[in-house]
Amino acid sequence: MVKYRIVQIGAGNVATHISKAFQEVGHSVVQVVGRAEANARALAKEVGAAYTITMSNIDKTADLYIISVPDSAIPNVLSALPQLSGIVVHTSGSTPASALQKVSESYGVFYPFQTFSKARSISLKGVPFCIEASGADVVSALSQIAASIGGKPVEMDSEQRRWLHLTGVFACNFVNHMFSISQVIAQEKGLTFDMLKPLIRETVSKALEGGPENSQTGPAIRGDSETIEKHVAMLKDFDAEWRDIYRLLSSSIWNTAQNND
Amino acid sequence: MVKYRIVQIGAGNVATHISKAFQEVGHSVVQVVGRAEANARALAKEVGAAYTITMSNIDKTADLYIISVPDSAIPNVLSALPQLSGIVVHTSGSTPASALQKVSESYGVFYPFQTFSKARSISLKGVPFCIEASGADVVSALSQIAASIGGKPVEMDSEQRRWLHLTGVFACNFVNHMFSISQVIAQEKGLTFDMLKPLIRETVSKALEGGPENSQTGPAIRGDSETIEKHVAMLKDFDAEWRDIYRLLSSSIWNTAQNND
Repeated sequence: MVKYRIVQIGAGNVATHISKAFQEVGHSVVQVVGRAEANARALAKEVGAAYTITMSNIDKTADLYIISVPDSAIPNVLSALPQLSGIVVHTSGSTPASALQKVSESYGVFYPFQTFSKARSISLKGVPFCIEASGADVVSALSQIAASIGGKPVEMDSEQRRWLHLTGVFACNFVNHMFSISQVIAQEKGLTFDMLKPLIRETVSKALEGGPENSQTGPAIRGDSETIEKHVAMLKDFDAEWRDIYRLLSSSIWNTAQNND
Repeated sequence: MVKYRIVQIGAGNVATHISKAFQEVGHSVVQVVGRAEANARALAKEVGAAYTITMSNIDKTADLYIISVPDSAIPNVLSALPQLSGIVVHTSGSTPASALQKVSESYGVFYPFQTFSKARSISLKGVPFCIEASGADVVSALSQIAASIGGKPVEMDSEQRRWLHLTGVFACNFVNHMFSISQVIAQEKGLTFDMLKPLIRETVSKALEGGPENSQTGPAIRGDSETIEKHVAMLKDFDAEWRDIYRLLSSSIWNTAQNND
């Protein structure tokens, strides 16, 4: 395996997980660059790197620079970066690769399609890494780097990556929010989230194994408007948006099923 | 184990799964009663029972009658049933136990909190069975029956069961619909649902192990309105309801996070 000397820009959820993975398999994270000093210092300590909060102090000798910051912060990072000779990538689902072309001749995207929370350790095994780059040599290098930490490199242009990112909002962020709502209702009414776990496990196994289009159950797909109205009325005890969510999703389940027939 | 002679009324998803589970552990399903003859015949054949489509032909000698029909069909079933001496239960999350008191002195609720699809075999191990009954002896009998097929009996009144059912709509039906939308978008854009599976698995493991309230990621919780607006614009290619879903759920994720702070 080719060992890379890596500078990590940003010290949030994605940065933390991939830097730790790099370090574990023998790459060197030589520097963490982050605006929030406490985060930069903590990550640097964890991976045995130096750190700085000043972009102009960036180590110019690294092989790979990974920008893992919110999309809205990418322009500021880029305008503060000097010209670099190493490969420069970002880990964003939504920002085009071309945004990076002014800071290096070798640039690309290294987008892990996964949900990362700092406190939770996670395996990157089998996680798709969406790769796009300035040239075939950089695609090849980034693919090897992704594979070295257990990821599954998938070459994909910026347009497809945007769509993949959008699917992730539904399949991850919105799904988690449904769990959150169910948990709040359960706890308010003297039930526990534990009682929901067998249902959640089976819901997901069924969708993964048989496809979600063959798995829907419940009042909405049965067109059971009596139960739907009862549920909407019960939700008056909670945030008004939840009633709207219940109505809208029930309508959408019904309409989707009609379109599939 | 006490062996029960059981009449199954209804031959849909729930009826199919619990009848098969009864038969497997040594209870006898003696008769299937269903309006749709093909369904009644198929289930009867699978569990080695007789079947009828005529409610007045019901076997009056059974120990246990299980009504597993849509909530809206329960009143019709009850008005067609003769007075019975066995225990009569329904498997509904939303209908009160008291609805059954006119057909038997021994009645109750036997509500498995799980998602059932006919084509998918499923273990009932650990599945909560919400039990409510006319008396302590019936609670005890229904609890033993639930345990005999691997379920976890939980005594619960009709009010709590209604709330549990509501949480299931969010945690199961709405979650599955999020998967459906993500799958349609992926497939329309040349991606595959398989690429989403590592993300889905981790989303669910994280929520189950650490709690959904500690697991949220993505543009909505970051307040990344630029990405949110881009995503809403991308959804113009799809069902108009999906744009509304995206906006409403993003707003709700943000508001829920503010309330938790």
